[in-house]
Amino acid sequence: MKKISLLGATGSIGQQTLDVLRTHPEQFELVAFSVGQQVDAARAIAREFSVPLLSVANQADVKALQEDLPSTEVVWGSEGLVAVASESGADLLVNAVLGSVGLQPTLRAIEKGITIAIANKETLVTAGHLVMAAAKKHNVAILPVDSEHSALFQALNGENPKQIKKLVITASGGSFRDKTRAELEGVTVQDALNHPNWSMGSKITIDSATMMNKGLEVIEAHVLFDMPYSSIDVVLHRESIIHSMIEFVDTSVMAQLGTPDMRVPIQYALTYPDRLPLPQAKSLDLVEIGKLHFEKMDLERYKALHLAIEAGKEGGTATTVLNAANEAAVALFLQQKISFLAIDSFIEKALEAHTVTANPTLETILTVDVETRRFVEKMVH
Amino acid sequence: MKKISLLGATGSIGQQTLDVLRTHPEQFELVAFSVGQQVDAARAIAREFSVPLLSVANQADVKALQEDLPSTEVVWGSEGLVAVASESGADLLVNAVLGSVGLQPTLRAIEKGITIAIANKETLVTAGHLVMAAAKKHNVAILPVDSEHSALFQALNGENPKQIKKLVITASGGSFRDKTRAELEGVTVQDALNHPNWSMGSKITIDSATMMNKGLEVIEAHVLFDMPYSSIDVVLHRESIIHSMIEFVDTSVMAQLGTPDMRVPIQYALTYPDRLPLPQAKSLDLVEIGKLHFEKMDLERYKALHLAIEAGKEGGTATTVLNAANEAAVALFLQQKISFLAIDSFIEKALEAHTVTANPTLETILTVDVETRRFVEKMVH
Repeated sequence: MKKISLLGATGSIGQQTLDVLRTHPEQFELVAFSVGQQVDAARAIAREFSVPLLSVANQADVKALQEDLPSTEVVWGSEGLVAVASESGADLLVNAVLGSVGLQPTLRAIEKGITIAIANKETLVTAGHLVMAAAKKHNVAILPVDSEHSALFQALNGENPKQIKKLVITASGGSFRDKTRAELEGVTVQDALNHPNWSMGSKITIDSATMMNKGLEVIEAHVLFDMPYSSIDVVLHRESIIHSMIEFVDTSVMAQLGTPDMRVPIQYALTYPDRLPLPQAKSLDLVEIGKLHFEKMDLERYKALHLAIEAGKEGGTATTVLNAANEAAVALFLQQKISFLAIDSFIEKALEAHTVTANPTLETILTVDVETRRFVEKMVH
Repeated sequence: MKKISLLGATGSIGQQTLDVLRTHPEQFELVAFSVGQQVDAARAIAREFSVPLLSVANQADVKALQEDLPSTEVVWGSEGLVAVASESGADLLVNAVLGSVGLQPTLRAIEKGITIAIANKETLVTAGHLVMAAAKKHNVAILPVDSEHSALFQALNGENPKQIKKLVITASGGSFRDKTRAELEGVTVQDALNHPNWSMGSKITIDSATMMNKGLEVIEAHVLFDMPYSSIDVVLHRESIIHSMIEFVDTSVMAQLGTPDMRVPIQYALTYPDRLPLPQAKSLDLVEIGKLHFEKMDLERYKALHLAIEAGKEGGTATTVLNAANEAAVALFLQQKISFLAIDSFIEKALEAHTVTANPTLETILTVDVETRRFVEKMVH
């Protein structure tokens, strides 16, 4: 039995992780999880999986939950997240929370030697150098859950990382791939939330529409696979069937393919280096699909991707600003306080206003993160 | 320095193997090779690579060559092939001869513990059980050179073979993929030799046009990867960019892609498990290619593929008959003695006339091989 802890159990990745655990009760035991404010969902999960430790966002929710769940210890807040991640006796932590809140629990879990399955790309974007250095120091594996990075990770199986020529990350193009930049002026939150291929949370769906999601993924790939930005390409591939590729020095390209189903990369991170059946996933039928399309990625059309790559190249706190500004701007767009195109320009302004610190400490990162969010929020008031 | 011996140096695979050796003179040493009747080419190769051992087909060619090449031992005939394969001190044998003549030298090399890079699919088709049993007994790796099997082999890198769900072999469709079966009636040798994607020898180009090549590959995949025929699919993929795929139990599909260039799989077999740069190969540019197409394989249109799969399922000497009848019929077609569609029907008649022996010995295989060729040749006289 592999003991699993799960940060962000009610989000899209969290729910799909629970679905994988449900499929293999003989393989996995859920020993701890966190939710935000969804106490009903938390109660149900704690009962279904008999989970000994649960963390909620707010102290106000603890008492009632604790009364309902006598065999579960209920904790709360950022301390609670750390307890779930690193003090639950887990073998593997699935970090599926949203945003940079996942950073500290991840670092604490790494210190305890717990394997990390990382769906929380913001952690790697904002503080990748700290996470990877800690993982190296404590000899901990960082297993990607994002479909693209899982594809790269699978393509690297049995290969020598020194023989990589380049990484090719595929992008579906998001909800607005057939619109020109001018046509994006008046799009609504509802339009943006309608992703053609993947079923995901709202923040990541907006990130897909702006292509910031792909920008964060490029930075994440740089961090996870230690590749220079000049060796990471992005290709538009509207069917989302080839999830990403690695070209090696001999021009041979290894790719991972499949129907778009996040449970496949989630389960792979849980079972790595093995694989288990996943009966609820649909086998790929390329004859049924008929054609796969590939188009050049237009960095003028997708300004957020351009901003992300430039921030990545700059390094240091630039990626922290990029990520925090994006989180704040997407939140403002979802609250209908700013337009879709303002997301990019708010991020650009935040980056312009910031003086980069190289090799930032965790403290600096957390400070820059808070300052950037404040900077972005001030722009609407 | 890895010591290489090469059976079939002047064929298409042989020449491309020499091109790979030429690219990495610091990595590989050619210690022996064979040719058929191309003595001028043999002389040039022996001089360029300073090769100590050379075998030609005919005794009549030995004397003059030996005089021209004082530092090369010149041998001949089937004994010569065995000497090149197994008595040259090679670490790795590239078996790139055509047809079942490659079988005995391969078995002898395996007995000596020499790694086999196998481009000679007929060896595996006609006597796969003997080759794989010998390889297992002597703990020898059989490395595929065919682009499809190299793709499968690469996709299996770092994976557990027990977790394979199915193999998917891609087929370009050959020279006549856009013709109906009725339209194949009057096609000429010249038409058939015009393959759209790959530069190959004439026998294999005809095998591509009939789709027997894919049939032999299905049998080869069954032998190499120990998979039942029900778990091997063939998909028409006209661009020959995805060279083949493996679906695992979790529905994840690993594929190897690249521009069609046989030097890539040849070099991979030589460098496995490492990779070396191959500057003369063109990197894959999916944006330039734009679209990849996948179509169902029509087993009525491609009767040879159907015959091959059925022979494979029957097993024993059925695949020996399939292969020998095909070699004989293709030779007759190339000599313009029979029509293109007669190739399939000659093979079908040979299979119908044969009573299968299960688990045949090498002797039985060689007898059945000769008898089948005689049976096919008699049909035109």
